[in-house]
Amino acid sequence: MADHGLSALRWAEPPDGPVLVLLDQTRLPVAEEELVVTDVPGLVTAVQTLVVRGAPLLGLAGAYGVALAAARGYDVEEAAQQLAGARPTAVNLAYGVRRAVEAYRRGGPAAALAEARALHREDAQASDRMAGHGRDLLGELLPGGGHQLLTHCNTGALVSGGAGTAFAVVRRVHEEGELRRLWVDETRPLLQGARLTAYEAARAGMPYAVLADAAAGSLFAAGEVDAVLVGADRIAADGAVANKVGTYPLAIMARHHEVPFLVVAPVSTIDLETPDGAAIPVEQRPSHEVTELRPGVPVTPVGAQAYNPAFDVTPPGLVTAIVTEVGVASPVDRGSLAALCSRTRTAMS
Amino acid sequence: MADHGLSALRWAEPPDGPVLVLLDQTRLPVAEEELVVTDVPGLVTAVQTLVVRGAPLLGLAGAYGVALAAARGYDVEEAAQQLAGARPTAVNLAYGVRRAVEAYRRGGPAAALAEARALHREDAQASDRMAGHGRDLLGELLPGGGHQLLTHCNTGALVSGGAGTAFAVVRRVHEEGELRRLWVDETRPLLQGARLTAYEAARAGMPYAVLADAAAGSLFAAGEVDAVLVGADRIAADGAVANKVGTYPLAIMARHHEVPFLVVAPVSTIDLETPDGAAIPVEQRPSHEVTELRPGVPVTPVGAQAYNPAFDVTPPGLVTAIVTEVGVASPVDRGSLAALCSRTRTAMS
Repeated sequence: MADHGLSALRWAEPPDGPVLVLLDQTRLPVAEEELVVTDVPGLVTAVQTLVVRGAPLLGLAGAYGVALAAARGYDVEEAAQQLAGARPTAVNLAYGVRRAVEAYRRGGPAAALAEARALHREDAQASDRMAGHGRDLLGELLPGGGHQLLTHCNTGALVSGGAGTAFAVVRRVHEEGELRRLWVDETRPLLQGARLTAYEAARAGMPYAVLADAAAGSLFAAGEVDAVLVGADRIAADGAVANKVGTYPLAIMARHHEVPFLVVAPVSTIDLETPDGAAIPVEQRPSHEVTELRPGVPVTPVGAQAYNPAFDVTPPGLVTAIVTEVGVASPVDRGSLAALCSRTRTAMS
Repeated sequence: MADHGLSALRWAEPPDGPVLVLLDQTRLPVAEEELVVTDVPGLVTAVQTLVVRGAPLLGLAGAYGVALAAARGYDVEEAAQQLAGARPTAVNLAYGVRRAVEAYRRGGPAAALAEARALHREDAQASDRMAGHGRDLLGELLPGGGHQLLTHCNTGALVSGGAGTAFAVVRRVHEEGELRRLWVDETRPLLQGARLTAYEAARAGMPYAVLADAAAGSLFAAGEVDAVLVGADRIAADGAVANKVGTYPLAIMARHHEVPFLVVAPVSTIDLETPDGAAIPVEQRPSHEVTELRPGVPVTPVGAQAYNPAFDVTPPGLVTAIVTEVGVASPVDRGSLAALCSRTRTAMS
């Protein structure tokens, strides 16, 4: 993460024992504050309140959390169970937990920490490879260059051990002088686009503009979107993509306007044990995220309830391609996903 | 407006001269505050800052504004010009101004005020008729009853001399026991749905829930939306509908899910002099409406720019029907709209 000047999560060893240091993403971009976590219940709270968020980073949080419990002598199996269930949709969290627990069973606390660090390095490498594959794919789909790209939520260095997922592709395109504009969906209710993606875009010197999510339709209609790039929290075996709520409307609009819709995510996001989109659990979050603009300041009448799913599910037929670190699945279906996953297993064996 | 316990705009004659009293819609639902306007520059500011808003109500504001200028001895023609151009998209504003100015030219200040009051009464009657036509149409389209309806922005008693446009239909359905749920898009950036429609829904005792605009996709996917009802700020001669930004994405999603998409608006919203959607001017509003959650409190990095169109344009092919006080146009095309408009001229002659 140092490459991009952002450290969303790091392991530290002060004299009184190891800790995880989290950049509090709920405070960005107004304040860059760190939160020090010393045990798994504290980490679970940080995950649930979105201090730490984003699919790949949740994988790292899961692995380092297991390492933390092990290093401090807590019950590792119990800690692993608490962590894996902290948020239901992102499959990476459970993946990171599982890898660290298996390492712990083989080699104790030191092995758990080594596994978390290995996952961290793999994640950074995966970002680089996704950036390359995504850039190549955009070059094929949009041979003219000078892209106007639209993204949703936050998928950059704040969610990853590297440059991120979809945002890593945007960054690569920008570094190569081919980004004409990044359109940043503000991403209600928690404004990860306005707060975090705009922050990363500004730091990277990109030409960008923020918009209310529902204003994307006007951009499509005006021909101002060449491609949509988003991340994923879980991809089912049939290619259905769970991602931040608002992704599915973008996919429908992209199809209506014949604009490529790309999902960028590490292979660990693909969950072959989830057969299809209907089988993905979608986290429902509290009403107050919608009914209050900040805690205690309602915008709705007293007692108003909100419908507030954290994610939605985009069927594979609306996804032009899934870009991973081991290659691209397009068209998106059971066969192309299974092929990608077997390529990983070969690479890892 | 008294029928619904809301008076968004009223004429008053205190000892020191006539005034317009506006319910400040920027303060709802937190506070019910009135703003007293004594001249046209003050009214123009109120229109531009959205103290008073909504297509039919802007028509009343235009007419009463001319009456106010006339009663107070200001230059009526100049006042009319300032008012008509205060916001570019809503055609009703210019319509209301024109009717009052023509009356003024014929009969002076008293005639202008009488014309504003006539427009006010017509508007209330139009609401009732739109409610009836809309209810009948829903009954045909959705014979099962127990509707789950989704709406965007605010189209109720706050925008009208009566019960409103799309919301008037919802209210009628509710009064007849056929409303299972009203889904209220919060309507970023200014949250007219969360603030105003939720306020009206709560006052009317409707079962409702607020959602982030981009969460509508999840409702469509789950089969929880039986029809979409929205208002309009201008309808071109070909049936293209300019309405609050976010309407066009809903129309695309409704089409994708084969859900009826109804536009409810008085005939005065149809502008036969605007040939098509491309000819409708769309107001671009300041960045800070998106980049600040309240004045002076940014959520984005310093210097962030926003793309902030107030409206979008939905092509006629995505509109199931346009419901007016004189009847329904469906399919929506030049012929059906021209027929509606000629029916009005006959009724008025």
